[in-house]
Amino acid sequence: MINKMAFKQIEKIDPIVDASSVKQYLLDLQNRICCFLELEEGKAKFLEDKWEHKEGGGGLTRVLAGGDCIEKAGVNFSHVSGRQLPQAATARKPELAHSTFQAWGVSVVVHPLNPYVPTSHFNVRFIMVEEDNHPPFWWFGGGFDLTPYYGFVDDCIHWHRMAKNACEPFGNDVYPKYKKWADQYFFLKHRNEQRGIGGLFFDDLNEWGFERSFAFVRSVSDHYIKAYQPIVEHRKQCTFSQKERDFQAYRRGRYVEFNLLYDRGTLFGLQSNGRTESILMSLPPLVAWHYNWQPLHGSHEAKLYEEFLPPKEWI
Amino acid sequence: MINKMAFKQIEKIDPIVDASSVKQYLLDLQNRICCFLELEEGKAKFLEDKWEHKEGGGGLTRVLAGGDCIEKAGVNFSHVSGRQLPQAATARKPELAHSTFQAWGVSVVVHPLNPYVPTSHFNVRFIMVEEDNHPPFWWFGGGFDLTPYYGFVDDCIHWHRMAKNACEPFGNDVYPKYKKWADQYFFLKHRNEQRGIGGLFFDDLNEWGFERSFAFVRSVSDHYIKAYQPIVEHRKQCTFSQKERDFQAYRRGRYVEFNLLYDRGTLFGLQSNGRTESILMSLPPLVAWHYNWQPLHGSHEAKLYEEFLPPKEWI
Repeated sequence: MINKMAFKQIEKIDPIVDASSVKQYLLDLQNRICCFLELEEGKAKFLEDKWEHKEGGGGLTRVLAGGDCIEKAGVNFSHVSGRQLPQAATARKPELAHSTFQAWGVSVVVHPLNPYVPTSHFNVRFIMVEEDNHPPFWWFGGGFDLTPYYGFVDDCIHWHRMAKNACEPFGNDVYPKYKKWADQYFFLKHRNEQRGIGGLFFDDLNEWGFERSFAFVRSVSDHYIKAYQPIVEHRKQCTFSQKERDFQAYRRGRYVEFNLLYDRGTLFGLQSNGRTESILMSLPPLVAWHYNWQPLHGSHEAKLYEEFLPPKEWI
Repeated sequence: MINKMAFKQIEKIDPIVDASSVKQYLLDLQNRICCFLELEEGKAKFLEDKWEHKEGGGGLTRVLAGGDCIEKAGVNFSHVSGRQLPQAATARKPELAHSTFQAWGVSVVVHPLNPYVPTSHFNVRFIMVEEDNHPPFWWFGGGFDLTPYYGFVDDCIHWHRMAKNACEPFGNDVYPKYKKWADQYFFLKHRNEQRGIGGLFFDDLNEWGFERSFAFVRSVSDHYIKAYQPIVEHRKQCTFSQKERDFQAYRRGRYVEFNLLYDRGTLFGLQSNGRTESILMSLPPLVAWHYNWQPLHGSHEAKLYEEFLPPKEWI
C-alpha cells in the first residue's frame, strides 16, 4: 500500500481527476506551440512521428529542423503507462517504487540558429499512480527556463515577468517559490554554473487539488508562449558571424551535460524504456567541447557568465 | 569494518602493495602515450595542466587539440584521495560506502580528425581503501575499446589480437572473460547498440594478488599502444569529404551519451568532485544530433551498424 502521508491526501476533497481533459489540453497545447514556432520560423515545417510505447500508450513527436530561424525544435506529446515508476521519479517517493503508473506530458526544446536568440525549454507533465482499491494518486510537474548565449537584460525581465504573471492568480508566494526551485534545478553541479537564467520549476504538485493544479498548469503553458515569442521575434533580426556560432556551439555542450546528467524528464524517459529518439530530440543539432575554454575578459561572452548566469531577481 | 568476504582476502598472501610503483608506472605510461600520439599527429603538441583535488591529491592533464591527424586527445593522470567512495564505485561494493580512498589512474580518449581513423579509449586505475587497524584494501580496473565510424575488418582483428596478446600470459580464460565484459560494458542500453567493437574491460581485480595484477595492468597498457598505433598510421592516409565528417559528428553523439549516462570513470569523477575539465576532456570536439537519422541501405555507414557494432568474435 502507498504511504499516502508522504503526499497530502487529496482524493477525499477532490475526487474528480479528469485525465482525459488533461490529455486533450496537452494535445491542443502541442498544436499551439508548433503553430507559433512555425510562424516565427517562416520556412521549415514540423514533421510528425506517431509512436507506441512498449509497456502501453505512445506519443506524437513533432520535430522541425534546418530552418532559417530555428535550427532544431522538438515538441513532444506522450501518454505512456508502465508497470513500475522509474527511479528518476521514485528517488523522491520510494513508497511508490512498485506502483503502475500513467504519465502524460508535453516537452519542448527550441534551438534557434541565431546565437542571439536564446534556447528555451518547456515541459508540463501529469502522473497518475494506480493501486487496487484506492482512488488514483496523481501529481503535476513542469516549468520553463531560458538559456541565452548572449544576455539581454530586457529579455530576462520579460521572461521572468511572464513567469510571474503565470503564477500570480495562484498566490503571491508561487512565483518566488517556483523561481527559486528553477534556480536550484537548472544547475550544473559539476560546473557550479546555472544552465541559463531560469524561470519556473515545480513538481509533485497536488496540494491545490486537481482543478486548481490543472488551471495552474494551463497558466504556465500559456505564459511560456507569451514569454518566448517576443524574444524570438526581436533577437532573430540580430546579425551574427561564425564567432557567435562557435560560442553557441560551445555553450550548447552545457545543455547536453545537463540533460544527460540531471534532467528528470530525460532520465525518467530513458529509465522507463521510452522512445529514445523522442527523449533525446532535446539535444542540440551541433555542439562543441573545447578543453578548459574561457571567455575573454570584458567580452560579451564573459558577460553571460558574470551578469546573466548567477541567479538573481530579474523583476 | 569492511566485509572483506565480498572480495577475496589477499592481504595475507600478498602483503606488499606498492602504490608508489603504480604511480611511477602510470606517469611514465602517460608520457609514452603522449609521445606516440604526437608522433602520429606530426604538428600539434600536448599542452599540460597540473591541478589539485579539493579533498587531496591532484593530477596532470595533457590535451592536444586542432591537429592535422588528431582533432582532440586527452591523456589524463590523476592521483586523488577522498573521504568517501563515490556511488559509481560503491554500487557494487556497498560495504565500502563510508571508507576513505585513494585512486590513481590514467585515462585516454583520442578523437581523430579523419573519420576513417577510429576513436579509441584506454583507462587503467588503482583504488586503495583505507581503514584503521587494517591493511589497505585495493583493486585494479581498466581496459580499452575502439569506436570506428567506418569499419574495417583488418583493424578489428588487429585490435582484438592485441587485446588477446595482452591477456595470454595470464591464462587462456582471461581474454574471453574481459572481452565479454567489454561487450557488456561499452553498450548503450537506451539505443540497444554497442559503443564500438569493444576490446577489454576489467574491474575489481585483486584475486591474483598485487604483483600479478599490476603485471596484467602493465601488459594491457603496453598492448593499447600496439593495438592503436598501426590503425592510426594506416587509416589517417584515407581521403575523406564533408559527408564522412558529418557521419563522424553524428556518431560522436553516441560517445557523449555513453560517457554522461554510463561511464564509470566519468561518473566516479563527477561524483567525487573531481576536476570537471579533466573528466570531460573525453567529450568530442564537434558533435551533431539529428532526430531519428538512419543510414542509407547498403551504404558504408549502414555497414557499421550491421557488420561491426553487433558483438562478435573477431579472432
